[in-house]
Amino acid sequence: MPVTNPPQSFLHKLFDAALAAVSPAVCVPPHLPPPPKGRTVLIGAGKAAAAMAAAVEAHWPANAPLSGMVVTRYDHGMTTTRIEVVEAAHPVPDVAGEQAATRMLDLVRGLTKDDLVLCLISGGGSALLALPAPGLTLADKQAINKALLRSGANIHEMNCVRKHLSAIKGGRLALAAAPARVVTLGISDIPGDDPSALASGPTVADPTTRSDALGILAKYGIEVPPHVHAWLESAECETPKPGDPRLSHCETHIIATAQQALQAAAAFARCQGVTPLVLGDTIEGEARDVAYVHAAIARQIFRFDEPARKPCVILSGGETTVTVRGNGRGGRNAEFLLALAHVLDIPVWALACDTDGIDGTEDNAGAWFGPDVRERAKACRLVSANFLARNDGYGFFAALGQLVITGPTRTNVNDFRAIYLPHA
Amino acid sequence: MPVTNPPQSFLHKLFDAALAAVSPAVCVPPHLPPPPKGRTVLIGAGKAAAAMAAAVEAHWPANAPLSGMVVTRYDHGMTTTRIEVVEAAHPVPDVAGEQAATRMLDLVRGLTKDDLVLCLISGGGSALLALPAPGLTLADKQAINKALLRSGANIHEMNCVRKHLSAIKGGRLALAAAPARVVTLGISDIPGDDPSALASGPTVADPTTRSDALGILAKYGIEVPPHVHAWLESAECETPKPGDPRLSHCETHIIATAQQALQAAAAFARCQGVTPLVLGDTIEGEARDVAYVHAAIARQIFRFDEPARKPCVILSGGETTVTVRGNGRGGRNAEFLLALAHVLDIPVWALACDTDGIDGTEDNAGAWFGPDVRERAKACRLVSANFLARNDGYGFFAALGQLVITGPTRTNVNDFRAIYLPHA
Repeated sequence: MPVTNPPQSFLHKLFDAALAAVSPAVCVPPHLPPPPKGRTVLIGAGKAAAAMAAAVEAHWPANAPLSGMVVTRYDHGMTTTRIEVVEAAHPVPDVAGEQAATRMLDLVRGLTKDDLVLCLISGGGSALLALPAPGLTLADKQAINKALLRSGANIHEMNCVRKHLSAIKGGRLALAAAPARVVTLGISDIPGDDPSALASGPTVADPTTRSDALGILAKYGIEVPPHVHAWLESAECETPKPGDPRLSHCETHIIATAQQALQAAAAFARCQGVTPLVLGDTIEGEARDVAYVHAAIARQIFRFDEPARKPCVILSGGETTVTVRGNGRGGRNAEFLLALAHVLDIPVWALACDTDGIDGTEDNAGAWFGPDVRERAKACRLVSANFLARNDGYGFFAALGQLVITGPTRTNVNDFRAIYLPHA
Repeated sequence: MPVTNPPQSFLHKLFDAALAAVSPAVCVPPHLPPPPKGRTVLIGAGKAAAAMAAAVEAHWPANAPLSGMVVTRYDHGMTTTRIEVVEAAHPVPDVAGEQAATRMLDLVRGLTKDDLVLCLISGGGSALLALPAPGLTLADKQAINKALLRSGANIHEMNCVRKHLSAIKGGRLALAAAPARVVTLGISDIPGDDPSALASGPTVADPTTRSDALGILAKYGIEVPPHVHAWLESAECETPKPGDPRLSHCETHIIATAQQALQAAAAFARCQGVTPLVLGDTIEGEARDVAYVHAAIARQIFRFDEPARKPCVILSGGETTVTVRGNGRGGRNAEFLLALAHVLDIPVWALACDTDGIDGTEDNAGAWFGPDVRERAKACRLVSANFLARNDGYGFFAALGQLVITGPTRTNVNDFRAIYLPHA
């Protein structure tokens, strides 16, 4: 079979194939329910919300009533005709998000069981729907959030507390919509695709409890004001649990996942005569250590054609983390790629990008490199170890002119990594 | 094909197969050179040195002269008849090691080109042959070593400095043996199997220079006494470089590697009807992050029979690291396994051991667990997150009665990891 040429174009097309497979325009239509007897109210939140709303509009029968509102991140809006799109701040919530959450609850209240609430959820939705529980303020939530971030609590612990301080997360939005049928379509950026974790599950039963939340605050020695403590002690604070009959009118479908993106890239590779090796869609851990493991697997393939024959592309997804030590720029995908370039001693092409189009807080989705990365870095007097020490993956690949810039993709299935080993 | 039963026995047999393939008794004989016209002087250092010497004795023609001495770690000796075995301290050198190095240099001096020096090298040999360069003391070397360890210098940088402060490392032992032929047989614990890195290469050309060593000391702001600095500035300090004609009488054979151990385990698995997935023999990185990547690959196999079909065993080697945060007990293999048990949500059997039989500084080679690890931990009131926070992998698996204890194996090809997924 012909090996794709040039390889950097192959890498970029792999990423395009992955993105296309999880784009709202492709994933939403097959999961749309039929219009109900009554009204259809569309709501949604997340980085993909506007694109999902546009996909519904494009396929919803013209004669069936459809109205509603979705909230997405600034610069992630799209032109729509029947659905209102509002923008708000991410990852730190702002008043626009708080107002959107209030309006969304109002939109779904007072419906009948003949009505349908179509809820479009994607990553980022949690910050975009930041509505404090009754009696609490956004400032209360922000203070506790900051304390949690400093404490070393993990993401599950933080989300448990957040859900119990919110008026909309952890199934509360679905409670407000009763008795209307609620169909949630989700694009998952959660390793493992747990619907209750996606955007803190506004329409999904919450397996965690307020006593868990209190336990987490105690575990990390986080003190909260008396009125917040009183709320957490109150029965009202409890979120609906799995099996709660109050959520029997709700169903959730995860319509796009990291696995789908990887399988689409794998299929594209096969068509090009390249063997895909899909490591998994739940890869977590410190970005540079994850890179070292990928490097070792690439070496094994290079030397022994094992566990896959060359030409081969290693594919993986998930969500790495970066423990920031320096003051450089760049997200976890640039850090992964920089660490890979730093340790790899064999000729490969590699690309690592965030599928939402924004790696960290920069303007790039990620970066790529080829087998000449060391020579090019040397010629430009870039010392990879120094860039790694200050977490400056962006700076390294910007200097090489090898950032991948897509702009917001309006979908989000987390990280995408590809390492291509040509035929020997 | 019949699936191995019980799985824990399968795991232990995999490890046994890996160890057997790299044992000196198996690996040394095929690489022995014919006896020379003159004398044969056997020298060696490392955790496998005594077992390698015993293997030479068992196969060396009875009528061919053979004498010499090897140094191994305390408790790693074996009964030999023609070769003297001495023991010394590892990883912190002691006077016994210094004396052994002095004697070894004396043994190889004054030979002729009809004589043969047979040098048996394995991991640990660097600490066991700690002989300061002329004018330097063991205290000088120890002080610089400590400063390097604190500095954040990587292992390659530390070894570069160490070689240039030594009277025996970096090819100096081979220089002393000239004009006798020097044949070095090495058992590699170095990811990538670079002979010049194995036990700091006492008989191998050194690609690093004294100016590299001075640069590293400057980079980390490590000040050295004037007499040490003067030594590093002197031409005498320079080690022989690749291509140096003074080493044309030397040859090196790496006779056992992590890859051989992994391939032996893979062959055993195949015989049992289990598909091996060999990720590689150069896996480095923080042990817990390496575990998270292995966990994701195991999940991919569990859910999709990809990249290998169940029943399957994931195999990997290399050398992980542990950034110690707590005061628990245990080495990097116990830490890897504890992190794996902590995050894995699918039924697997797993084993992780150091092939030298000592994981860190404990009495165990490593540990193992089965699919009931979470239930058993819960029943014993062991919270894996707490053990992980204090780096107490030993404590966790000791409490479960699931340590793997082999005693010193007298070989050393670094880490061995196996994760077994039975048929669905």
